[in-house]
Amino acid sequence: MAARRVLVLSGPNLNLLGLREPAIYGSQTLADIHAQVEARAGALGLEVECRQRNGEGDLIDALHEARTAFGGIVFNPGAYAHTSYALRDAVSAIGVPVVEVHISNVHAREAFRHRSVIAPVAWGTIAGLGALGYELALEALAARLGPEG
Amino acid sequence: MAARRVLVLSGPNLNLLGLREPAIYGSQTLADIHAQVEARAGALGLEVECRQRNGEGDLIDALHEARTAFGGIVFNPGAYAHTSYALRDAVSAIGVPVVEVHISNVHAREAFRHRSVIAPVAWGTIAGLGALGYELALEALAARLGPEG
Amino acid sequence: MAARRVLVLSGPNLNLLGLREPAIYGSQTLADIHAQVEARAGALGLEVECRQRNGEGDLIDALHEARTAFGGIVFNPGAYAHTSYALRDAVSAIGVPVVEVHISNVHAREAFRHRSVIAPVAWGTIAGLGALGYELALEALAARLGPEG
Amino acid sequence: MAARRVLVLSGPNLNLLGLREPAIYGSQTLADIHAQVEARAGALGLEVECRQRNGEGDLIDALHEARTAFGGIVFNPGAYAHTSYALRDAVSAIGVPVVEVHISNVHAREAFRHRSVIAPVAWGTIAGLGALGYELALEALAARLGPEG
Amino acid sequence: MAARRVLVLSGPNLNLLGLREPAIYGSQTLADIHAQVEARAGALGLEVECRQRNGEGDLIDALHEARTAFGGIVFNPGAYAHTSYALRDAVSAIGVPVVEVHISNVHAREAFRHRSVIAPVAWGTIAGLGALGYELALEALAARLGPEG
Amino acid sequence: MAARRVLVLSGPNLNLLGLREPAIYGSQTLADIHAQVEARAGALGLEVECRQRNGEGDLIDALHEARTAFGGIVFNPGAYAHTSYALRDAVSAIGVPVVEVHISNVHAREAFRHRSVIAPVAWGTIAGLGALGYELALEALAARLGPEG
Amino acid sequence: MAARRVLVLSGPNLNLLGLREPAIYGSQTLADIHAQVEARAGALGLEVECRQRNGEGDLIDALHEARTAFGGIVFNPGAYAHTSYALRDAVSAIGVPVVEVHISNVHAREAFRHRSVIAPVAWGTIAGLGALGYELALEALAARLGPEG
Amino acid sequence: MAARRVLVLSGPNLNLLGLREPAIYGSQTLADIHAQVEARAGALGLEVECRQRNGEGDLIDALHEARTAFGGIVFNPGAYAHTSYALRDAVSAIGVPVVEVHISNVHAREAFRHRSVIAPVAWGTIAGLGALGYELALEALAARLGPEG
Amino acid sequence: MAARRVLVLSGPNLNLLGLREPAIYGSQTLADIHAQVEARAGALGLEVECRQRNGEGDLIDALHEARTAFGGIVFNPGAYAHTSYALRDAVSAIGVPVVEVHISNVHAREAFRHRSVIAPVAWGTIAGLGALGYELALEALAARLGPEG
Amino acid sequence: MAARRVLVLSGPNLNLLGLREPAIYGSQTLADIHAQVEARAGALGLEVECRQRNGEGDLIDALHEARTAFGGIVFNPGAYAHTSYALRDAVSAIGVPVVEVHISNVHAREAFRHRSVIAPVAWGTIAGLGALGYELALEALAARLGPEG
Amino acid sequence: MAARRVLVLSGPNLNLLGLREPAIYGSQTLADIHAQVEARAGALGLEVECRQRNGEGDLIDALHEARTAFGGIVFNPGAYAHTSYALRDAVSAIGVPVVEVHISNVHAREAFRHRSVIAPVAWGTIAGLGALGYELALEALAARLGPEG
Amino acid sequence: MAARRVLVLSGPNLNLLGLREPAIYGSQTLADIHAQVEARAGALGLEVECRQRNGEGDLIDALHEARTAFGGIVFNPGAYAHTSYALRDAVSAIGVPVVEVHISNVHAREAFRHRSVIAPVAWGTIAGLGALGYELALEALAARLGPEG
Repeated sequence: MAARRVLVLSGPNLNLLGLREPAIYGSQTLADIHAQVEARAGALGLEVECRQRNGEGDLIDALHEARTAFGGIVFNPGAYAHTSYALRDAVSAIGVPVVEVHISNVHAREAFRHRSVIAPVAWGTIAGLGALGYELALEALAARLGPEG
Repeated sequence: MAARRVLVLSGPNLNLLGLREPAIYGSQTLADIHAQVEARAGALGLEVECRQRNGEGDLIDALHEARTAFGGIVFNPGAYAHTSYALRDAVSAIGVPVVEVHISNVHAREAFRHRSVIAPVAWGTIAGLGALGYELALEALAARLGPEG
Repeated sequence: MAARRVLVLSGPNLNLLGLREPAIYGSQTLADIHAQVEARAGALGLEVECRQRNGEGDLIDALHEARTAFGGIVFNPGAYAHTSYALRDAVSAIGVPVVEVHISNVHAREAFRHRSVIAPVAWGTIAGLGALGYELALEALAARLGPEG
Repeated sequence: MAARRVLVLSGPNLNLLGLREPAIYGSQTLADIHAQVEARAGALGLEVECRQRNGEGDLIDALHEARTAFGGIVFNPGAYAHTSYALRDAVSAIGVPVVEVHISNVHAREAFRHRSVIAPVAWGTIAGLGALGYELALEALAARLGPEG
Repeated sequence: MAARRVLVLSGPNLNLLGLREPAIYGSQTLADIHAQVEARAGALGLEVECRQRNGEGDLIDALHEARTAFGGIVFNPGAYAHTSYALRDAVSAIGVPVVEVHISNVHAREAFRHRSVIAPVAWGTIAGLGALGYELALEALAARLGPEG
Repeated sequence: MAARRVLVLSGPNLNLLGLREPAIYGSQTLADIHAQVEARAGALGLEVECRQRNGEGDLIDALHEARTAFGGIVFNPGAYAHTSYALRDAVSAIGVPVVEVHISNVHAREAFRHRSVIAPVAWGTIAGLGALGYELALEALAARLGPEG
Repeated sequence: MAARRVLVLSGPNLNLLGLREPAIYGSQTLADIHAQVEARAGALGLEVECRQRNGEGDLIDALHEARTAFGGIVFNPGAYAHTSYALRDAVSAIGVPVVEVHISNVHAREAFRHRSVIAPVAWGTIAGLGALGYELALEALAARLGPEG
Repeated sequence: MAARRVLVLSGPNLNLLGLREPAIYGSQTLADIHAQVEARAGALGLEVECRQRNGEGDLIDALHEARTAFGGIVFNPGAYAHTSYALRDAVSAIGVPVVEVHISNVHAREAFRHRSVIAPVAWGTIAGLGALGYELALEALAARLGPEG
Repeated sequence: MAARRVLVLSGPNLNLLGLREPAIYGSQTLADIHAQVEARAGALGLEVECRQRNGEGDLIDALHEARTAFGGIVFNPGAYAHTSYALRDAVSAIGVPVVEVHISNVHAREAFRHRSVIAPVAWGTIAGLGALGYELALEALAARLGPEG
Repeated sequence: MAARRVLVLSGPNLNLLGLREPAIYGSQTLADIHAQVEARAGALGLEVECRQRNGEGDLIDALHEARTAFGGIVFNPGAYAHTSYALRDAVSAIGVPVVEVHISNVHAREAFRHRSVIAPVAWGTIAGLGALGYELALEALAARLGPEG
Repeated sequence: MAARRVLVLSGPNLNLLGLREPAIYGSQTLADIHAQVEARAGALGLEVECRQRNGEGDLIDALHEARTAFGGIVFNPGAYAHTSYALRDAVSAIGVPVVEVHISNVHAREAFRHRSVIAPVAWGTIAGLGALGYELALEALAARLGPEG
Repeated sequence: MAARRVLVLSGPNLNLLGLREPAIYGSQTLADIHAQVEARAGALGLEVECRQRNGEGDLIDALHEARTAFGGIVFNPGAYAHTSYALRDAVSAIGVPVVEVHISNVHAREAFRHRSVIAPVAWGTIAGLGALGYELALEALAARLGPEG
């Protein structure tokens, strides 16, 4: 049953986490974060699946697949957040609650990062709290999806 | 011969037609529309091929392929219409007449949907008339491509 | 009965069609287009009335009159499309489906022609397909108004 | 023969000249200006016809009529200069040289008066020189239309 | 004597009041409002004349006529409020106090309705209070025009 | 009972009325206006309470208090009108009809005064009619609150 | 010791939570949220103090006081988020980590709510997750402040 | 007598001077500056009173009080400089010469600090010269207020 | 005596007239224009002096010198028209009537040429009429300077 | 060893070079350019690898791969230059010097081509010099990567 | 030794001080100001040199020369302040503290005067205090340059 | 013969190269660059002449002179690149190919440096590659001017 399954989906360049610009993104790799997310999911009684894609079309495909297969999504759209109306439409179309997460405080960086075109159709957003943001997003979805049956 | 072959190409999220937001997009699925388009093509003496892709690069590839294989294109670029200069360049480069179609009245929706960066290089545009827009676009291309040889 | 009567209304400067700037607007006169429209209307089982006015107030009057006398409107607002909120309010007030038509591809011309303030309250829009746009608009209205009684 | 006939056309509110805001527009009435224009036309060997209209549609009609009846136009579009793309299209369509004239220095007044949407399709513009501007425009047209036959 | 005569002038589409979009404009017809205005005028000792015009040029003519024939004007410019510098110039030219009235709360509607280009040259503005706004405007003019002689 | 009690609330710098810039604000003091308002309230069968505060937080507190204690509010937000989303939220939250009043014609002054962020959530607005605006706002509220019980 | 003491500070109109616009803000009162926050704080081993102020100056005072008395701040600046550079300066000056929280998804509401001038100097932001956002912010601060001594 | 009494008024967050961000604001406390200002005032034969307030309403109150009690004002509005039209109105209303002072070079910092809405109604402005700016402002006022009687 | 002496001053790149871009600027050289101007001046009873400078400072110097030495100026500021506030200040400072002339129709060219920062302080402007513009400007100045003594 | 290996990466539609719009892009095919680049690389003692991709995600993948496999990159992002913050992040993340190349003079074309969001994180940019730009970029990288070991 | 030598440099049109627009600039000539500045310099133990130039290039030259010859600069860039990035670069390049001075309150004049592109690289700015601004700038430099050796 | 003579022209402040802000502009002096350019010119069989001017008018003069005396120009307009339409007109007028060079990556610096008004009329642009940019520009011109005769 999809209800308590959560997709943790990360977008472009996040595969380089820990390898690039640690002053901005920290030194954890994406694998580290996935491990941390899975541990927290276990504690919350959620099943998670973690994926990363660089292509906009591939991310759309993943969101579409989640329409029937997952009860919630933690979505870090990376830089697509600022321009991708196609991802926005995908989030809006699938009818699954999405929490948008950004590792860095996007509001403290370049002006183009201050606006997310996806945020208006997400359930909520978390930014600037590092990898912890993924965990807090999971926790929010756990609360929304309700107790295990 | 390519002359009276028409590519009907639909972009991101249009595979969810009928499954998402029926208040905006109606209850027809994309398969329904393709069937309807093929029927009309038959009546007009056109050969059609219907495709849908979520990826921008995949849509560019399809347009490039049409350069020599099709005499006209009905193109619904979905949300890429509003930002994709790469698709615009593809349309402009291939030298095949393109009618841009939108199912919903994009001018009556969010501000970001009011502008298409592809429209300036298309032959013409049709918006807001539902799936009928695809048929009218076919009819326009039939008129332009001239009578069957 | 108004239901299958359609008003074909053209705005400022369209009386000069065929006489001005043929590179943009083609060589057909408005009378040619009206003849073509009437022929198509006959084929579709619609009754049409064709008018052209240069004055904004006169166009508003014509739209008001259509509120009870016509079942649909093909409306080419010419350059008023870009600024006339009064025409927009008239379209919005009369409760009759309107298809906005432009002969040239307005999106490929000066920036001020890219935006129509009327489009958001029209049912749909067709641009760039020449006089054929009038015919396609008729066809859309025929489909919407349903079969002859 | 139209060649050396010039239409002197004034737009909205110019019938109140001399009656309103003399600090901006001077104390001459429009009749005074017409008399002055006719005198100068005589000296230049031009035939002139002077008209004033408050309605945008009426001004469009007058410009259309000039297409075949006049060899040049002195046009003071008044406040329509700043918004009327329909008048711009009329000027552009008729193929008759138009000199745009403003009595006051529009560039020294409110920001909305700094831009004329008609100027780009006029032959030239004269502003701020009072009623003398009409005379200088006539002189420019006389030079362009060439010597009397 | 013009002093205590007031022109109540309504612009485009207001002839459809009560017939269109009652959620925005209420169910009163313009005739109802005129009756209500005349009753209030009687109580205030004012003479009123009520008119409605759809054409911008016709409204300019009406304002010009009021220059000598009326001591005050209640003016609902409808959608021309947002673009018509020609009406603004007419209001500014005639030297008669004008109260601009809008039936709906224009500030709560589309962005283009938030700005009136006429307001800066009016004496004052009233918006959102329905037909009552006409009455309050009359009352303001009665106070300004002073007691009956 | 709150129903026919009206709060007349004035914002920053209005305590200096009559003491500052009489060319813009007139020579009446706020005490004069309050007296005039109370007289009119009596004639309309309304109970009024008049207050003035310079602090944004204090104005929010006053609006909150009005939620249960008053049936309507005449609110002159002064310069906070142009920037205070917190006051806007307060007006929107309390569910009491608010008429926004400005003594001067804000549309005829600096550009920053042309926009009120409060107007979209008010019932209506009155500007430019001097202290009379307060009285007309009272009258509008009296009509809306209905006859005395 | 300040280290594990957290100030939970809420801004203008949040005292009306549960009393206003439940479709946007839910039906919990601020007291409910404070209780929920205190419970979570206990579970996390944090000491909390909850305050609400409507005045910008009062919120600045509270932030200043926190400079030495608290180790972290959960701050819901309400509508001041969008304009108050003074609150931004206060957050920036005190050198205490601040998590900005909004109950509603501000990105899905009016355009003016899309930008927070405080976010660039906060540690991170959480929006749209309702009262749960306060709890997640506490959890983030608990992680940052480290384990109890 | 007010003539040679000067109010030195500082706005939000300036009470933290020397305690916050010394790279921008230097290491002097506000008390240090007040002492320095008083010494200079003595040398110039001026009487000064130094105050600091965080609340916008409190600063308005202080300016109002200065209307009759002081002959000049040195005003550091802090971050309110960039948004507070209410403070601007207060400065404009009181008819007392105001010199606006900023300790840091606001033009070298974030874009929002480049514009002061108060500057247009101040007598003059001094920015970037540190605490010395307060002294120079005093000296300017001393020169303007003329010699001691 | 300066009264009937006119300075004809041309700015950057005008020394290349006839040598560059004849489609825009015509084939006359600046020397041709100067000759034509001098002939017309003779006919008008004016004394003229013709100069051209490429440097902004040199043009300012020439305008300053004209303050006492000339009764009027025909000024073609070339591309400095669009940016030079220093030339604007010079024109404004010298108290001599200036007619701004452009040979080409600047309003029909790139957007940056549509605005002249000098026009607001000139007496009037003439654009698009070629070298004839210089002559018409002379004629305007002759009329303003009055008959020969 | 990666140090003197250079990736020559071209983006969307560049596979159509020589086949489309030769007036803008010249008649060389991409294969021609690759041959020319390889010849120059040989002369400079560099090893090159030439690729072209239409998909944004595929270009990101190629850049990521270059992080460890190449010492420099010649990157023609095509139309993605104007919008792709994801490509910008990839360039910024990989720590390899990138020279951005455009074949046409993008500054002389449509406004949307004037800005590259990638340029700020590139080492340098070359535009307008045709295929030669690729060679000059190689030469710059050769100089930066230093002499062969 | 350069340390206590100060250059007082004034830009375009300031040579006309006292001769032009005394309502804005006062009746002192530049020679008067130079005398006043020299007197004050003497009192402060500074050596000054006063220059004025109308040309941007000449002002750049003067600033360059000051790089080694002066310890500080009082710079009134006149209208170049609003556009000259070349002067900004010169100020930034020479490493000498610059106080930007404007005689009039530029913030109270036309919008284009509200922004100085030089201010961000100056040490500080003084505006609106008349010729006294030059003296206060000198005093600031005296304080910064330290006591005489 | 001009054909293989190239002018290397540098604009404002470039005479300070190596003396100012080495973090941005490097430590080479302009003399060093000129030597390097001359060496490369020799290798390419070009004759070069190197000049630097701070004044806009002087740069225009140099470009004009190049019209007949040089076959190509390497032009570093410095900060004039961002505002000087007069230099743009000069480049456009002279009909000699111009390569615009910037030493630093102007796209990575302040926003005002991102746009060059000269680039649209140059043949091409090179930025960010240091002094090497001058050499690459020479090489491009050598290729365009063809082999030595």
